[in-house]
Amino acid sequence: MLPFITLLSIDKTSNQPVYLQIANNVVNIIREGQIKPGTMLPGTRELARLLNIHRKTAIAAYDELYAQSWIEVVPRKGARIAQNLPDLQPQRWNEPRLSSYGNMLAAPFYRIETHTNIPSGPVLRRPDFIIDEGYPDSRLAPLDLLNRAYRSRAKQNTVWKWMPGSLAGGSPLLRTALVGYLLESRGLDIQDHHTLITHGAQMSIYIAASLLLKPGDAVIVADPSYFLANKVFESLGARLVRVPVDGYGMDMDAVEQACKKNQINALYVIPHHHHPTTVTLSPERRMRLLELSRRFDFTIIEDDYDYEFHYNSAPFLPLASSQHDGRVIYIGSFSKSIAPSVRVGFMIAPADFIRQAIQLRMMIDLRGDHILEDALAELIHNGDIGRYLKKANKAYFERRDHLCLVLETELKGIVDFDKPSGGMALWARFNKDYPLIRVADAAAAKGLLISRGFRNHGNLRDDNSIRMGFASLEINEMNAAIEILTGVLKPKI
Amino acid sequence: MLPFITLLSIDKTSNQPVYLQIANNVVNIIREGQIKPGTMLPGTRELARLLNIHRKTAIAAYDELYAQSWIEVVPRKGARIAQNLPDLQPQRWNEPRLSSYGNMLAAPFYRIETHTNIPSGPVLRRPDFIIDEGYPDSRLAPLDLLNRAYRSRAKQNTVWKWMPGSLAGGSPLLRTALVGYLLESRGLDIQDHHTLITHGAQMSIYIAASLLLKPGDAVIVADPSYFLANKVFESLGARLVRVPVDGYGMDMDAVEQACKKNQINALYVIPHHHHPTTVTLSPERRMRLLELSRRFDFTIIEDDYDYEFHYNSAPFLPLASSQHDGRVIYIGSFSKSIAPSVRVGFMIAPADFIRQAIQLRMMIDLRGDHILEDALAELIHNGDIGRYLKKANKAYFERRDHLCLVLETELKGIVDFDKPSGGMALWARFNKDYPLIRVADAAAAKGLLISRGFRNHGNLRDDNSIRMGFASLEINEMNAAIEILTGVLKPKI
Repeated sequence: MLPFITLLSIDKTSNQPVYLQIANNVVNIIREGQIKPGTMLPGTRELARLLNIHRKTAIAAYDELYAQSWIEVVPRKGARIAQNLPDLQPQRWNEPRLSSYGNMLAAPFYRIETHTNIPSGPVLRRPDFIIDEGYPDSRLAPLDLLNRAYRSRAKQNTVWKWMPGSLAGGSPLLRTALVGYLLESRGLDIQDHHTLITHGAQMSIYIAASLLLKPGDAVIVADPSYFLANKVFESLGARLVRVPVDGYGMDMDAVEQACKKNQINALYVIPHHHHPTTVTLSPERRMRLLELSRRFDFTIIEDDYDYEFHYNSAPFLPLASSQHDGRVIYIGSFSKSIAPSVRVGFMIAPADFIRQAIQLRMMIDLRGDHILEDALAELIHNGDIGRYLKKANKAYFERRDHLCLVLETELKGIVDFDKPSGGMALWARFNKDYPLIRVADAAAAKGLLISRGFRNHGNLRDDNSIRMGFASLEINEMNAAIEILTGVLKPKI
Repeated sequence: MLPFITLLSIDKTSNQPVYLQIANNVVNIIREGQIKPGTMLPGTRELARLLNIHRKTAIAAYDELYAQSWIEVVPRKGARIAQNLPDLQPQRWNEPRLSSYGNMLAAPFYRIETHTNIPSGPVLRRPDFIIDEGYPDSRLAPLDLLNRAYRSRAKQNTVWKWMPGSLAGGSPLLRTALVGYLLESRGLDIQDHHTLITHGAQMSIYIAASLLLKPGDAVIVADPSYFLANKVFESLGARLVRVPVDGYGMDMDAVEQACKKNQINALYVIPHHHHPTTVTLSPERRMRLLELSRRFDFTIIEDDYDYEFHYNSAPFLPLASSQHDGRVIYIGSFSKSIAPSVRVGFMIAPADFIRQAIQLRMMIDLRGDHILEDALAELIHNGDIGRYLKKANKAYFERRDHLCLVLETELKGIVDFDKPSGGMALWARFNKDYPLIRVADAAAAKGLLISRGFRNHGNLRDDNSIRMGFASLEINEMNAAIEILTGVLKPKI
């Protein structure tokens, strides 16, 4: 009998399903080195007997482990711990277990040469709770309505059958609906040919940057700023010119200084609820930025991903809604306002820029899901999106206040923050005595996933801060998550 | 009263809805210059009276024209012909009708500088029938089942709530399902970490090429080949080395010659039903290609988008299923096998390459719709996809034979082709006396959209050929489409 079985503890009163408890336990035991790769596991029948559980539960646990690549199935022998563990993968090219992608004993495994060398991210496993970086709560979103609209449109196939290649700019219905929506919600006076529908804000950033920047160009970004935008600019060979960001957004004196010292091609700004620090660019600085863009002749990439959620006052109108002589590329996303799974974003820009953006979008992605786009247009048109946003604003307002309250009550002196005026996250500065890398790892072991907090930083300094999303957690979930965090930060002796 | 009203003819016996007839008529009248931009239109009540139609029909016609941007609404005045017509847009930067993206009288409109200059594609309007380049028929696809799986999974939000950033490689369920699916369908022996789920084959090509190619690199492509892959390679600064393609696929003697003359970094091949000419790479040439890739040390991008549909014999196994020492990046797509709206594709490659591909995918697109990916995994797992593919193969077999029959019967001497052994299109060579540009324009005027036939060509020679897709048309639709085409090619005197 395998000794590790005795290490598996099951809590049948827990909310976590038993099969998941087993799977997570096995993962932990593997990680701790108590069981080695290649070790055979008992059959599901035996496991069920040993743990006194239903055999279906044992099968589900193994399925889960298999799905996460922790175990592998040997025909006619059973399951064993994978040789190649998910977060312990060798960096070698010779992968002798695989026939087509390896299994060469004589010939060395060929290494595909890439000219970029992007570091890998960490492998994550499934937690009980996630304090994310600020995502909407899909459970509030009108996904059922969207789904119904989708189904009814999918059946109208013959009516809506455009030449698929002509849909790279987005479904005509959604482009038109977006024009009306942006006029109503943010005073943006545009026409269909100023719009490009993308797969999300990230793709809009990528396309805009790819068209704007060539190697050696300089782009101003806040310090710290959204790390995946920085990565895009750097991957295109552009040079980041970082300027500080304070409680009113990007420091415009620093922008002016940067412009005097460098030939600036573009500036990337998140005007509402800056990522990561959640501050909002003040109206005065907005005016100043537009003036600087004219004076120093650069293009502004305005990533207004978080325009929809405001709790203290109405949002400021986008730079794109001001007089900017076509200098602003405006980016937004329904993934951020509806649900992460609804992958629809947009870019607003002068018509000729959009025309080129559509060509690039075809190259990287052909087109979006035009049926989904049409369905979303219908929900915008009939007011469902507007009604949902009202409801979500109310819920997130309450969740923001609740998170602020429990952090102040439970973690005063450990976690410091400024209450954000909107958005889906607050910027939590942890006391240096509680290094986030250790806090996050300890929390993960107890089923709470939070960020280890180093990705968003412009420079390498570690200010021990993370975004704590409050939008996607219901009050009781938030309480449970903070309870785990408090247990980690203030262990009972 | 507007004179153009007398030009509107309605055929109430037509299959085309009356509102669409009106809308299309108005578009034609505008195009012919009989009515100028800015002209006020009658109210819907008056239009209904004039044309003796229901007012709802008049409203629907105007809605359609508005959706297509042909008309605009002036508050308290009614509708007028748009100033800025959809396919007559000015190439100027000064767009005086727009406030934020123009409306500068004093200041000249700023031109955003891009370092790429991608030509624009043609603007298309909605036709009655489309002979596409080879797309599946969504009506046969299990979209209802997919939708049901989607809905049930969308409700399991709390269970399936991963940190969204961890899904850039694709949903773990789909990656696992894909591994099983590719093993069963094409003998590909891989593991989850050799898979990347993308937004479609195009994105897989873009990501693979971006990681492989830097400016000045040489990539071998067939002549002619898939034009959007060529555009991707060229946009990355790579040099295309074109080799001929005959009835057995890419000419391997030419590949060998090209390798001797050039330092080749990669080769792009479509082994089944080459785009555009639909030929299949023979087994001998497959072996030869693998041998050449070893000898001359290059990576093969194997775009097997059309593996699923075969009518004469079983498909050949992919290059990726042979011994290739990790030299093959294998690309496929469910958009091509299920429906254009299901935007899910994949890339199979060595684990380290996939790791970098995931990082790049995050930069250009963050992640896919993980609920859709999970739902698709469910359909693969329970056999729905397999059953659908059997059904579709049967239908497309019949449609291929029917198109071949009517082309031989109706258009012998005008259209020449070789019956393809699989796939969703045939390669139709038109007699030079019938230039496709004129044929396509004449057909479009009669409601049939076909390609003008110049995009796929490697070099600039015009061999007056197009792909004619047969998969997406039912037999009666195909008959109607070919009748229009025949009317254009053999006008009755």
